[in-house]
Amino acid sequence: MNQIGREVEPGLLVVLSGPSGVGKDAVMARLREQRFPIRFAVTATTRRPREGEVHGKDYLFVSQSEFDRMIAEDELMEWAVVHGNRYGVPRAQVREAIQRGEAILIRVDVQGAATIRAKAPESVLIFLEPPSMEVLIARLKARGTETPDELATRIANAREEMKRLPEFDYRVVNPDGGLDEAVDKIKAIIIAEQCRVHRRRVVV
Amino acid sequence: MNQIGREVEPGLLVVLSGPSGVGKDAVMARLREQRFPIRFAVTATTRRPREGEVHGKDYLFVSQSEFDRMIAEDELMEWAVVHGNRYGVPRAQVREAIQRGEAILIRVDVQGAATIRAKAPESVLIFLEPPSMEVLIARLKARGTETPDELATRIANAREEMKRLPEFDYRVVNPDGGLDEAVDKIKAIIIAEQCRVHRRRVVV
Repeated sequence: MNQIGREVEPGLLVVLSGPSGVGKDAVMARLREQRFPIRFAVTATTRRPREGEVHGKDYLFVSQSEFDRMIAEDELMEWAVVHGNRYGVPRAQVREAIQRGEAILIRVDVQGAATIRAKAPESVLIFLEPPSMEVLIARLKARGTETPDELATRIANAREEMKRLPEFDYRVVNPDGGLDEAVDKIKAIIIAEQCRVHRRRVVV
Repeated sequence: MNQIGREVEPGLLVVLSGPSGVGKDAVMARLREQRFPIRFAVTATTRRPREGEVHGKDYLFVSQSEFDRMIAEDELMEWAVVHGNRYGVPRAQVREAIQRGEAILIRVDVQGAATIRAKAPESVLIFLEPPSMEVLIARLKARGTETPDELATRIANAREEMKRLPEFDYRVVNPDGGLDEAVDKIKAIIIAEQCRVHRRRVVV
């Protein structure tokens, strides 16, 4: 405790989510570029890397059997199948950050965000949303990394994911050509959460 | 409602408080200088202007009889006697801003913040705190605008005010020589609150 009674900071668990294609990865990349002072949880996935993605930084690209092992040994905080690929958040890195009193950011699909909230009610959930469904669909098409069937599935899923906004604490629109605007708001949310008078300890 | 169901923004009522001498006025002045997009409620007071303070901008400097009239006609959202002077927040400017869906910032003493919270539970309360009681006392002395008796009263009051931190939503330290750091955090809190998914209408 310091002179006026402030305890050592508890850790902060921030979850960045939103529908497929809204720009979660771009936000994460920009925050890294800007060296914003937060740790980034690295998600394990069985999907193939997209161009430019780096193993251990953007994702942990693992085999199906390695993912099976992580599940079996209860190493994942949550995991889910999204568009036929498995994604999971390794618990160890999150727990270590929280125990050191640090802030850590997890990027996860909407379903995963709900799981994390259920397991760690003190987590802070941010929903990155498109300016409109039309814009989101256009972005998914422009990405060009999916087959037509995959694309149709992603669009259908995105419509469902948009309905889960009320489960989140904060909403941030990611406008066309306005990534920095969205990133600035996400930084503001993290800074504000660190200023809360009543922060309770996150248990992971 | 826009295409994805966002309603017109409800207004946001932000209350900046903290012990006497912590730097609330300096924060307000810096936010104005930076043209941060928020309205500033102008407090009515019977105290004499300090050097450089402008009527209608920093405060509404009114006579005792004018203040009496404002109380009698229920024009004040809250008012209190602080160090022998009366301070009050005219309700009309706050109500108008909220009804237009704007954000408005009220600077008020700790006692006044509690009154506003009681009347408008949806308001957001920020406690500006000194790095330590010693620093606060040094600042009060350095200001040199009080008589020794007034100063002693302010110090005693500040100690009491510090105890009311738990009634607030956010705490922001105003470090020596670090006004911009405090201002940046206050801006982050306001931006974050505007991103909340569940904002309820403030009634003033």
